[in-house]
Amino acid sequence: MSDELFAAVVAQSAVRGQTDDAAIVSAILRVETALAEAQGRVGDLDDDAVASVRQACEAAAGIDVVELARDTALGGNPVIPLVAELKRLAGSHADAVHRGATSQDVLDTALMLMSRDAIGTINAELDRAVTRSDDLATGDHTVMGRTLMQSAVPLPFSTKVGSWRRGLADASSRLNAVAAGLPVQLGGPVGDGSTLGEHHADVRAGLADALGLVDSPSWHTMRLPVADLAAGLATASGVVGKIALDVVLMAQSEVAEVREVSDGRGGSSSMPHKSNPIAAISARASARRSPHLAAHLFAQMEQEHERAAGAWHAEWSVLVDLLRATGSASWWLAESLASLEIDPGAMERHQ
Amino acid sequence: MSDELFAAVVAQSAVRGQTDDAAIVSAILRVETALAEAQGRVGDLDDDAVASVRQACEAAAGIDVVELARDTALGGNPVIPLVAELKRLAGSHADAVHRGATSQDVLDTALMLMSRDAIGTINAELDRAVTRSDDLATGDHTVMGRTLMQSAVPLPFSTKVGSWRRGLADASSRLNAVAAGLPVQLGGPVGDGSTLGEHHADVRAGLADALGLVDSPSWHTMRLPVADLAAGLATASGVVGKIALDVVLMAQSEVAEVREVSDGRGGSSSMPHKSNPIAAISARASARRSPHLAAHLFAQMEQEHERAAGAWHAEWSVLVDLLRATGSASWWLAESLASLEIDPGAMERHQ
Amino acid sequence: MSDELFAAVVAQSAVRGQTDDAAIVSAILRVETALAEAQGRVGDLDDDAVASVRQACEAAAGIDVVELARDTALGGNPVIPLVAELKRLAGSHADAVHRGATSQDVLDTALMLMSRDAIGTINAELDRAVTRSDDLATGDHTVMGRTLMQSAVPLPFSTKVGSWRRGLADASSRLNAVAAGLPVQLGGPVGDGSTLGEHHADVRAGLADALGLVDSPSWHTMRLPVADLAAGLATASGVVGKIALDVVLMAQSEVAEVREVSDGRGGSSSMPHKSNPIAAISARASARRSPHLAAHLFAQMEQEHERAAGAWHAEWSVLVDLLRATGSASWWLAESLASLEIDPGAMERHQ
Amino acid sequence: MSDELFAAVVAQSAVRGQTDDAAIVSAILRVETALAEAQGRVGDLDDDAVASVRQACEAAAGIDVVELARDTALGGNPVIPLVAELKRLAGSHADAVHRGATSQDVLDTALMLMSRDAIGTINAELDRAVTRSDDLATGDHTVMGRTLMQSAVPLPFSTKVGSWRRGLADASSRLNAVAAGLPVQLGGPVGDGSTLGEHHADVRAGLADALGLVDSPSWHTMRLPVADLAAGLATASGVVGKIALDVVLMAQSEVAEVREVSDGRGGSSSMPHKSNPIAAISARASARRSPHLAAHLFAQMEQEHERAAGAWHAEWSVLVDLLRATGSASWWLAESLASLEIDPGAMERHQ
Repeated sequence: MSDELFAAVVAQSAVRGQTDDAAIVSAILRVETALAEAQGRVGDLDDDAVASVRQACEAAAGIDVVELARDTALGGNPVIPLVAELKRLAGSHADAVHRGATSQDVLDTALMLMSRDAIGTINAELDRAVTRSDDLATGDHTVMGRTLMQSAVPLPFSTKVGSWRRGLADASSRLNAVAAGLPVQLGGPVGDGSTLGEHHADVRAGLADALGLVDSPSWHTMRLPVADLAAGLATASGVVGKIALDVVLMAQSEVAEVREVSDGRGGSSSMPHKSNPIAAISARASARRSPHLAAHLFAQMEQEHERAAGAWHAEWSVLVDLLRATGSASWWLAESLASLEIDPGAMERHQ
Repeated sequence: MSDELFAAVVAQSAVRGQTDDAAIVSAILRVETALAEAQGRVGDLDDDAVASVRQACEAAAGIDVVELARDTALGGNPVIPLVAELKRLAGSHADAVHRGATSQDVLDTALMLMSRDAIGTINAELDRAVTRSDDLATGDHTVMGRTLMQSAVPLPFSTKVGSWRRGLADASSRLNAVAAGLPVQLGGPVGDGSTLGEHHADVRAGLADALGLVDSPSWHTMRLPVADLAAGLATASGVVGKIALDVVLMAQSEVAEVREVSDGRGGSSSMPHKSNPIAAISARASARRSPHLAAHLFAQMEQEHERAAGAWHAEWSVLVDLLRATGSASWWLAESLASLEIDPGAMERHQ
Repeated sequence: MSDELFAAVVAQSAVRGQTDDAAIVSAILRVETALAEAQGRVGDLDDDAVASVRQACEAAAGIDVVELARDTALGGNPVIPLVAELKRLAGSHADAVHRGATSQDVLDTALMLMSRDAIGTINAELDRAVTRSDDLATGDHTVMGRTLMQSAVPLPFSTKVGSWRRGLADASSRLNAVAAGLPVQLGGPVGDGSTLGEHHADVRAGLADALGLVDSPSWHTMRLPVADLAAGLATASGVVGKIALDVVLMAQSEVAEVREVSDGRGGSSSMPHKSNPIAAISARASARRSPHLAAHLFAQMEQEHERAAGAWHAEWSVLVDLLRATGSASWWLAESLASLEIDPGAMERHQ
Repeated sequence: MSDELFAAVVAQSAVRGQTDDAAIVSAILRVETALAEAQGRVGDLDDDAVASVRQACEAAAGIDVVELARDTALGGNPVIPLVAELKRLAGSHADAVHRGATSQDVLDTALMLMSRDAIGTINAELDRAVTRSDDLATGDHTVMGRTLMQSAVPLPFSTKVGSWRRGLADASSRLNAVAAGLPVQLGGPVGDGSTLGEHHADVRAGLADALGLVDSPSWHTMRLPVADLAAGLATASGVVGKIALDVVLMAQSEVAEVREVSDGRGGSSSMPHKSNPIAAISARASARRSPHLAAHLFAQMEQEHERAAGAWHAEWSVLVDLLRATGSASWWLAESLASLEIDPGAMERHQ
């Protein structure tokens, strides 16, 4: 079952591949491997057991996701059937697999890894847009300042673009802070670590260290890390949406101060004479998905006791969509700015 | 690129297959065929031309969606490259393809067909839940009424389930009304029908009739049909969420008045003794996606002039997600109710 | 404590006064009176008792809302302290007050009355905008059709305005249908009517009839009427937002095809030469509040058992805000269209 | 026009008074005074002029807000009529009032002051809840851990409450960071500072310093400060909602591990025997408003050019509501925890 057509507009960028089934399975396996290794380092598992887990995780990398999805529906999350398969593959060392952990430990940690990777991509796109803004800000032409969509007084075009640049850099810096604070999750069934034994704190710290995440007490139902992601991503999308709107408005036929110049992009099925700023339009369309996805994640913070009966499950797809929407918005904006041709003459005529 | 794992929980049901790339391509081709046939009936196209369009649409059914997605990114919507391919396939009758139409005409109409099909599935699931509610409402046991989550006074369990049933039936009836009102879209580039020639009104009426949609003036940027879908789907999800919550609450260990009995479903990776009401939990998780998706669609109603620069594009994926979320919620609830075992003794003990 | 300043922009129109404390108290008292009268008609109360309740309600009309608010915080809703006051006022007929009802019965019914009144105002504003659209649609000038904010091909201005008109009329017709379907709520503590005695069905039907609402079984936690309001109001706001955006875009200095002409409105604190389309801008600002308020209401549908522990309370203010936002959007749009001056010459120059 | 009744439930706490008309007028006047003083310090205004502005601002403190609201509707924001009044009051020094500034400069800066004050209150409430969590965490009883609302294995009650405490402290720390980063806004009509003259940068820095805000280039349409507020407030509400839900669930009649003990609070109009956890319920109801309000603010980031035609205006009331909702949620939660009575015996029976 493929969902490529609409994704081409609102889920562009490498984030898509960083958040698909293969990426999720890979992140889960990475967590299970690192968990066994951390338990090996404190002496909870012997070398053979660790090696068996590692090999099982390698062997499971090619697992059939359609089958895995079918079994996911039975238990309510993909870690349950994946762990069953790992135990099968680990044979006599089955007990070493997923030792003391609960499925939410593994899925939460895996989603943090996935989010960090995706933010890397998003920030690379935002940086590309920053660099291109720097290029656009050279030159000393002015542009009409417009307030409430009415001509006000002119301002340097470099000031207008400088505001874009600052917004992009600030959004990127917020996302970097979010990524740097993403925590590991390891608490066992009810989050208190008791099933992980006396070395629980060391194992958790070791796991965090190995995965490059922040060590943290259990946040199974205290979802600040997800809220932080929602905030950072919605903010970045908001900045992109503002800039894309400015581009679309300046590209209006009656204004024509900028246009996207790109081979092949921007045609019309019924009006061959038109040239549409498709990249800025797609950036807007992508960015507009974020506020509501972020609201959903904030709304899911109300989670019951030690594991939520629905609100946790309701996070997953939406986190993926929010990463993709922001990735897509950033990619399209970088494309738009890279293709932007300025018409200083038109700018002058409107003053 | 597959997205099966999380979909297993929050995008279950046949709606998923009714809204994927294949379904969208198929709906687009159905619209293009029906358009040519409608134009044939009023004499705008001769029989050979209509036959050529029909054959081109048949031949394009197996088009490579990955390639189509790549070209979608260039023009901003999937109809542009698909029409290009149809014209190629129609050879000397290329002019008969997509005659006088704009890509939004075809995509909007195709999405109405897709939505109607999906609503058919959703209503079948809601009806399954209604029937099962009728079963549950037999018997004369009472259950403690609970207000603000405190014991109040008992009420007949049939009254409690009767409220579920009424909610389901009312939601289904609203969705039926929405489906019955879904309109055709055919207006040409700026919606006034001028490119469709003197028979515009007849062609549009004929297209509507052939597709089983309501005839309507252009709604390119007046998005009431999308708002109606948002409303009907969010309402149905809301009803499902309420019932699923009741099930989850009554299934609590300390209450235990109901439980889901199902082979294979509801296990835990760390606690084999547990039995979780996974179907009701998944229904909740699915239903909770809808309010925010609906808000997104309402927010996209603010569309510019004759075709929106982003807000239209921002609708597509979200409409798909909303159909899937509601379909998933309905399917899981029907599953939950079908597997529900009542414990009248427990109900009595709480009075 | 007053909130007038921002309300001047995003909560204009008579809806504000129809949804304030005085209106709510008045609606509650109207329900309590009508309930006693309905119980009198079936013989559950004698004439003296009904008269006492009626007089108590009249006497309570001037109750101090600050004090009532303080007591509202104690019980969680305003009906509890208001009923206590009514019982005090009814003296020896205290038992006749609020007989068999629960506070949610009265508040839900009162909010339906309030909503119906507000929809009356909203529809009057939408009708004013329809009438003004009819005026604007006279004349035979054309305007450039704009797709993706690029010039496409011209269309009759009457066609463009005709689309506005149709959207307004359709939104109004949906709101009328919602208003006509608003139900009474009367079920007693757990909704089954048992505390209302053997004449429960007749009392409820009589109450519905007296208040002009639809008779209905209890919907304490099955919130379709609130969902219907959310849908109808968000849809109306969406239509207003679309039209207001078109006005703002056509009023841009570089387009200048329309402008709002109004004594005193639209000045600037720093740029006296500017004339801003303040009415259309305020309509947009008002309309944009609605999607998120509607999402909130849809999200609150997930209510526990026989009375929700929070989700019900979370509806009230948001329903009020949504009525006000839609009222404000409608009022401002009617104002904008009433003040709109068309420049056919400018329209011609852009073709 | 008063809105006290529903506010008693979902807009409790001192934040309400910190965000009403009087607070907004006061903040605006504080900004206008500080602006003149900053301009005095760099020599742009002489002492007499500064004194006149100061006196005008003092004299305007008692302005009639109903009248001010009426004039707000004319210009689209409350600064325009307030500045007109200040100029009148300043007599011959009218030119010294609001010199070089635009109304958005003043309103944005005033709203930052208001937000900072409100966050102070919210954090005091969160701290109160932290302290009370510390009290609750003493003792060594265990409580059943519940996952997916099913009994799992017991955990120390201090661990459960410790998670609440950490969530509250983390939310408070995020809000403190947001408050510490709130910027001044001073850019003149199009944000480039040109109307403020050669000392623009110094005046802005001086204004920031005097008001305790961060110096910053113009963010008229680059709304990261508002996004930061949305994020911090929605996160805090999310944490409160999670804890309040736990309280409500543990207070269920069938669980009864905690109850709110409070004079006068929690009664029922129809069931005198009931005791409802009204504070936790009201905390939930308040907290649930936030995700959607935050989404609204994120969605308004898409602002046109140098001043938005609606999206800016759409922020004001919603920012106020979000501060109030979070303030109310925090206040109610602190009240709930303060009144919470634990039943360790009941906890033991569920293990």
